[in-house]
Amino acid sequence: MPDHPQKPAPPSVVLASGSPQRREILGRLGLEFEVIASGVEEIVHGEPASVVVANATLKANAVIDSGAAAGAGTLVVGCDTDVVIEDHLIGKPEDAVRAREYLAQLSGRTHRVISGLAVIGPESDRVRTGVEETTVRFRPLDVHDIDRYLATGEWKGRAGGYAIQGRGSALVDRVEGDVANVIGLPIALLYRLAPELEA
Amino acid sequence: MPDHPQKPAPPSVVLASGSPQRREILGRLGLEFEVIASGVEEIVHGEPASVVVANATLKANAVIDSGAAAGAGTLVVGCDTDVVIEDHLIGKPEDAVRAREYLAQLSGRTHRVISGLAVIGPESDRVRTGVEETTVRFRPLDVHDIDRYLATGEWKGRAGGYAIQGRGSALVDRVEGDVANVIGLPIALLYRLAPELEA
Repeated sequence: MPDHPQKPAPPSVVLASGSPQRREILGRLGLEFEVIASGVEEIVHGEPASVVVANATLKANAVIDSGAAAGAGTLVVGCDTDVVIEDHLIGKPEDAVRAREYLAQLSGRTHRVISGLAVIGPESDRVRTGVEETTVRFRPLDVHDIDRYLATGEWKGRAGGYAIQGRGSALVDRVEGDVANVIGLPIALLYRLAPELEA
Repeated sequence: MPDHPQKPAPPSVVLASGSPQRREILGRLGLEFEVIASGVEEIVHGEPASVVVANATLKANAVIDSGAAAGAGTLVVGCDTDVVIEDHLIGKPEDAVRAREYLAQLSGRTHRVISGLAVIGPESDRVRTGVEETTVRFRPLDVHDIDRYLATGEWKGRAGGYAIQGRGSALVDRVEGDVANVIGLPIALLYRLAPELEA
């Protein structure tokens, strides 16, 4: 039996994203949550921090507007993650040719991974937003490294064409910042924006 | 069909460690490998970098000496990972009471995760060694956070009493360096010590 006072129960959480990576990370926090993919059309051009915050807000708002997350005490979490190299946003490669281009660009260099987070509820419709940025350095890759990585298929649906929590970890030699942010959900930022989750 | 010349095949690898985390990381590299736990008695006191290199070498040597890795073309990999806080080595907590002490020490502070790596073979018995260090900052944890983490049981058998790739990622707010090193096997260092793995 714990000999310290109990905190109030945390709110129920809706993750406004169909990403299995985000679901996996949120699952690590030991929270009850539900997944409702928003299906919004994402913004793909603009200043990186503004784009990811706008997309995160669009996703959370779409879930609120759909009424699917109705009910008092619900916290809706929207998130958008992109890779930025030399101030250019790199999203998800549409095919292996584009994935090869991305990996060749990232080889031997440092890039930024930027996430926007938007949290709505449980008490009001006010949107709380924030941005998290992590830098990632790739080791120099030759054509064999890239061939081998593309053959895993792991590039599909991943911003920048790699997954740091999978085979892609062999491409990375240094990270500075929140690792969960690179996978797709900045946990420390989520706790800062929504301290009620730490009940 | 690739339109570039093939490299020679990489050597077969023996991982001299029973750690499921190391096995998982090595599996990400797409290499064929075998696991032979060395069963050596580890050194637990001394200057951190010396201790982890000595333990890694002991493990690799024990596998070589057992004859289990006999055969030309075999590369034996030994590794030891420890957590260092204020120049003190923290190993695996022996029970939940000790794990609670460790997590309370790590709370809100930055610590170092240090791995020693030892590679032997395939052509000679010369040992190639190296050290990798990553810094990890924990967010401030209260007694509820620690209770909840201990209840997952994830602290068992983990240096410092946490696993960054699991629920422990919710305890960490910043990493600087190789993330694979924190999980237990520094991949970039392994490639630097054994470039023949990149065939």
